[in-house]
Amino acid sequence: MRELNSLGLKTHGGRVLVLDQSRLPDVEEWLDGTTPSAMSEYIRRLSVRGAPLLGISAALSLAAHAEAGAGGSELQRACAELRGARPTAVNLGWAMDQMRAVLDAGGSTRELVRTAETIFDLDALSCERMADLGAALVSAGEGILTHCNTGGLVTAGIGTALGVIRRAHEQGKGVHVWVSETRPLLQGARLTTWELARLDIPHTLITDSMAATVLAQDRAQRVLVGADRIARNGDFANKVGTYALAIEASYHGVPFHVVAPWSTVDLSAASGRDIPIEVRAESEVRGYREFRWAPNQVPAFNPAFDVTPAGLVESWVLDRGVFSRAQVAKGLDVSQQS
Amino acid sequence: MRELNSLGLKTHGGRVLVLDQSRLPDVEEWLDGTTPSAMSEYIRRLSVRGAPLLGISAALSLAAHAEAGAGGSELQRACAELRGARPTAVNLGWAMDQMRAVLDAGGSTRELVRTAETIFDLDALSCERMADLGAALVSAGEGILTHCNTGGLVTAGIGTALGVIRRAHEQGKGVHVWVSETRPLLQGARLTTWELARLDIPHTLITDSMAATVLAQDRAQRVLVGADRIARNGDFANKVGTYALAIEASYHGVPFHVVAPWSTVDLSAASGRDIPIEVRAESEVRGYREFRWAPNQVPAFNPAFDVTPAGLVESWVLDRGVFSRAQVAKGLDVSQQS
Repeated sequence: MRELNSLGLKTHGGRVLVLDQSRLPDVEEWLDGTTPSAMSEYIRRLSVRGAPLLGISAALSLAAHAEAGAGGSELQRACAELRGARPTAVNLGWAMDQMRAVLDAGGSTRELVRTAETIFDLDALSCERMADLGAALVSAGEGILTHCNTGGLVTAGIGTALGVIRRAHEQGKGVHVWVSETRPLLQGARLTTWELARLDIPHTLITDSMAATVLAQDRAQRVLVGADRIARNGDFANKVGTYALAIEASYHGVPFHVVAPWSTVDLSAASGRDIPIEVRAESEVRGYREFRWAPNQVPAFNPAFDVTPAGLVESWVLDRGVFSRAQVAKGLDVSQQS
Repeated sequence: MRELNSLGLKTHGGRVLVLDQSRLPDVEEWLDGTTPSAMSEYIRRLSVRGAPLLGISAALSLAAHAEAGAGGSELQRACAELRGARPTAVNLGWAMDQMRAVLDAGGSTRELVRTAETIFDLDALSCERMADLGAALVSAGEGILTHCNTGGLVTAGIGTALGVIRRAHEQGKGVHVWVSETRPLLQGARLTTWELARLDIPHTLITDSMAATVLAQDRAQRVLVGADRIARNGDFANKVGTYALAIEASYHGVPFHVVAPWSTVDLSAASGRDIPIEVRAESEVRGYREFRWAPNQVPAFNPAFDVTPAGLVESWVLDRGVFSRAQVAKGLDVSQQS
């Protein structure tokens, strides 16, 4: 396997290493995800997270497992285990489909490795394309509101929504980023701020509940988010809280864009109703990590994602192009051919 | 001074004791707020919080200070200090106006004490009236979404929005409460859940970012919140996150009500633009209490309140009656006379 490097993943000497995102920003620890069982566990516990990275990491661990000598039936089993680690992001299933196609055709270890490397390489290219397309929409001096974490940590390249922001910043547009903290797991507060500080992009952290105030006070003129799965009609699932931001943006007349690679599109899902939503442990809502502030046994509801209807989206910034609401209304399967 | 008792405040032997709300639900500690300087400090650091309770506690500490022998000029100074402890809730200023009127007229200690006791007594009665009026709006089996903490802890009685919920529950309406955690200080997660458990009212905790999902899934059919200051045109300030809930409720066609005593109405404020919004320490957004999860020096914005425009409100449940949007459109000063 080639040596690959991104902010949150690297391969070295046949090993697949992932940065433990659950411990950032205070601890930067690399975990060894060379075996699919270890990688599945990291994915389940969110040490590895973010729609594109899930597929990339899973594919590379499967390829490394093949290089280490695992046979066909073991690789098929590992492929299924990785696919089942998290249900909502379609990229994970998409990457496992690519790998399984090679396995099913009796492909060699070298072919498996090449497929995984290609998934990595294409994702990095895809980020560049989205960044260029998305940055063209951004005006100078804009405040941009974003949610969760969609940058270099979760892709092979510069990111999806955060990649667009980075490109606009590199173009000297003087953007200011409003980062919603993203309860319950605080990916905005912990990870997006960490990335923005490294990139020296001006930013301000807010709680999720303050986004409406930021929009009402005209501090942000655009909302950019990523996606975990986009249905054929443009409805999409993303980190919980995205839907509220879309409603708030619509109310304030602020354009709201989704930025995602085409591998996030699930043409088998006609609408958001067909997207499975992962419900996680109640304890995540009662506090954060070992710190609990709610009463010990209080009942909690913890949908990790929500679905934003296409009607609230100004445009879909995909690596295949920017799609307007009118185009998407015809169906993404049709739109992408026009 | 008479012996007074509410969930979060009691007087005993001339002392004014307040439950430290910043340490609930795990620690139930009573603080001695008999002197206005101690009470001001408790108010500033949010050990004592909630619009109605701010006025009640301040008035009682001033009365206790008079009983302990403080003279007129010292009481005037203490009155100003208490009034300045927090800017947004008008009830604090309203209560200090009542006390200062007695002081300015050269009233006796006994008159000061009676005035403070009356503020307490009227607030308890006011809660009963709001509860009756508001509960009449609630249908059997409703899910009710609420924000922050508006119950017995912050009033002399059963609360404002939470008092309505309690009354509906007592009437056997079988309500279920959806509690938004209320970042950054988590009054929903810590205090509202604690009160609801004591009252045995079914409830579920969510993060603020999940409220839109609860509405989209038809789990809640009504939103009830309190207020810190209501302008003449019905715009109102309340804990940050309220405005987002109002937008989300409107988008889903779910009725959204404000529940507050008349002392929350500030007729000198023509609209929400005239309401001062307290901006608190950035550190509150970077974590919770001693637990910080964001990078140490990340810039943060921390408006403690937001303003909800009257157009998003279905009705204002005040102790003087339930006011419709049409009534409030004429101005609350006019409406309350009709």
